Amino acid sequence: MPDLPKRVQINEEGPREGFQFEKGPIETRRKVELVDALSRTGLAQIQVCSFVPPKNVPGMADADEVVKGFTRQSGVRYTALWLNEKGLQRALAAGKLDVKGSIALTASEAFLKRNQNRTLQENIEAQRRIIEMYKEHRVPVERGSIMAAFGCNFEGDISRQKVLDLTQQVLDLAAEYALEIKVFSLADTMAWATPQSVKRMVGAMREKFPALRLALHLHDTRGMGIANVYAGLEMGVDILDASVAGLGGCPFAAHKGAAGNVCTEDLVFMCEEMGIETGVNLDVLIAAAQLAEDIVGHPLPGSVMRGGNLKTLRERARAAATA
Amino acid sequence: MPDLPKRVQINEEGPREGFQFEKGPIETRRKVELVDALSRTGLAQIQVCSFVPPKNVPGMADADEVVKGFTRQSGVRYTALWLNEKGLQRALAAGKLDVKGSIALTASEAFLKRNQNRTLQENIEAQRRIIEMYKEHRVPVERGSIMAAFGCNFEGDISRQKVLDLTQQVLDLAAEYALEIKVFSLADTMAWATPQSVKRMVGAMREKFPALRLALHLHDTRGMGIANVYAGLEMGVDILDASVAGLGGCPFAAHKGAAGNVCTEDLVFMCEEMGIETGVNLDVLIAAAQLAEDIVGHPLPGSVMRGGNLKTLRERARAAATA
Repeated sequence: MPDLPKRVQINEEGPREGFQFEKGPIETRRKVELVDALSRTGLAQIQVCSFVPPKNVPGMADADEVVKGFTRQSGVRYTALWLNEKGLQRALAAGKLDVKGSIALTASEAFLKRNQNRTLQENIEAQRRIIEMYKEHRVPVERGSIMAAFGCNFEGDISRQKVLDLTQQVLDLAAEYALEIKVFSLADTMAWATPQSVKRMVGAMREKFPALRLALHLHDTRGMGIANVYAGLEMGVDILDASVAGLGGCPFAAHKGAAGNVCTEDLVFMCEEMGIETGVNLDVLIAAAQLAEDIVGHPLPGSVMRGGNLKTLRERARAAATA
Repeated sequence: MPDLPKRVQINEEGPREGFQFEKGPIETRRKVELVDALSRTGLAQIQVCSFVPPKNVPGMADADEVVKGFTRQSGVRYTALWLNEKGLQRALAAGKLDVKGSIALTASEAFLKRNQNRTLQENIEAQRRIIEMYKEHRVPVERGSIMAAFGCNFEGDISRQKVLDLTQQVLDLAAEYALEIKVFSLADTMAWATPQSVKRMVGAMREKFPALRLALHLHDTRGMGIANVYAGLEMGVDILDASVAGLGGCPFAAHKGAAGNVCTEDLVFMCEEMGIETGVNLDVLIAAAQLAEDIVGHPLPGSVMRGGNLKTLRERARAAATA
């Protein structure tokens, strides 16, 4: 048996992933309702929204109102996404968010072109401007990430060497600005990973960068999400992004059946059943997943919210046995 | 890296799992169409139907006609399910099926009561009568299985010791009748397994019964199917049941969101991407999955049929790079 982590940190990305992707429109108060429901689950981090131009992502036009609307729970970090200084300023102005920076590169130049109209080199220059902006606003930067780290619909497979090289570039950039990267996230943006490629990639990263704590951001478009998480856990990864009910998808990935992140409650279920602490109350989370489905008005991909928590069935079976 | 098998055998159960579960009615010719489509995928074994009383399973009332209707492809084994002598006689009378027997016990007495109205002991007696029936009809018996091997919605967790004991009982029964069990299947009928419990159970089985070739039949009701398959592969399991598009579910399991077996094309995708041969043409199988969805008239849980085969995207990316 490999050593699974004792405890994992799950970063809930459902509100951001979901509401940027859903055609909607979804009322602001319902978005707030979901954030508040997630705040009561025990999840330690919730990404509330992205501050991006409404013409690019209409579902995020009310991001400022969503942030105004939700009720902070102590012990929960509330985060947001931004792509430029204007976005960062909105996040800072909100006064309710845990604003932290990260240095993010993308492994696929073809994807970068479509998604942000940049070359790899232009993206590195853009990161310099972003780091300078963080410095100026005194925003801490302890996280690096590589998008499309396992493959790209437009560029094909991404080699481990490329990811290692890009990781080194992130660390070099950080060093230039006297920043220390502690957490490094690999994103399978377009769902190219398999459990085997996750193990190999994480293994290569661990070997080359033993000091980095690794995180995985895994999309479930080809149904590999939960198996890829398991492979990551087996390699000791203990930070995972996930999306309640499986909300979301990337609007730029050109998938017919664009699927969101791996489903939070399915992930919590797997971890808890395997003795890995998540800090989350699964029943409360299942209720939040059902709320998410009600809010978007169509079925979402999560399984445990339909299949049910085994804890409940265990208790019922125990009661029946002693009756 | 653990040693994954070089090659796996996938037993397609979609037509049987699906058409016994779907409310329908589904025209016989469409069921035949699906079997014929699956016959062209490279799958080596297809379970076509179950011969059970129509009053219990209305969707199988036309089982004899389905068997009459499909076209045998050489190299493909066509199987069926039955629960009693009448069912077996129908399977034999069809003259087109690969009729093989198995000795099957169920780990949960509570489930057995609901499903077949038998105690564990009565079930063993019933197996004796079934074995005698196989002897009489000269049906070969080389397979054993345990249903509800990982847990039961009505009885709770199932211990590894219980499964080991029941496996021994199957082998003892076989020995009584001078039969040799070569393949042994563990069925997660109600989706209680996690990758960890799969590894532990398979490990315990391997240790106690090293001569048995193990198979897994995994339902996906709680979204763990593909991760559980991966855990099985890591333990060297090389026979897997699966269901095209994720068709099916157990009508007696009392699940709200009863989900079928792990999805065949998602499983084939994972194996092929990891270098494990399946013998299956994924594009042809994806077309069969889309046909299955068309036949049942509602979305089915498979992911790769929506997310797409990476092979196609790789070729497109290669073409774009050289253009």
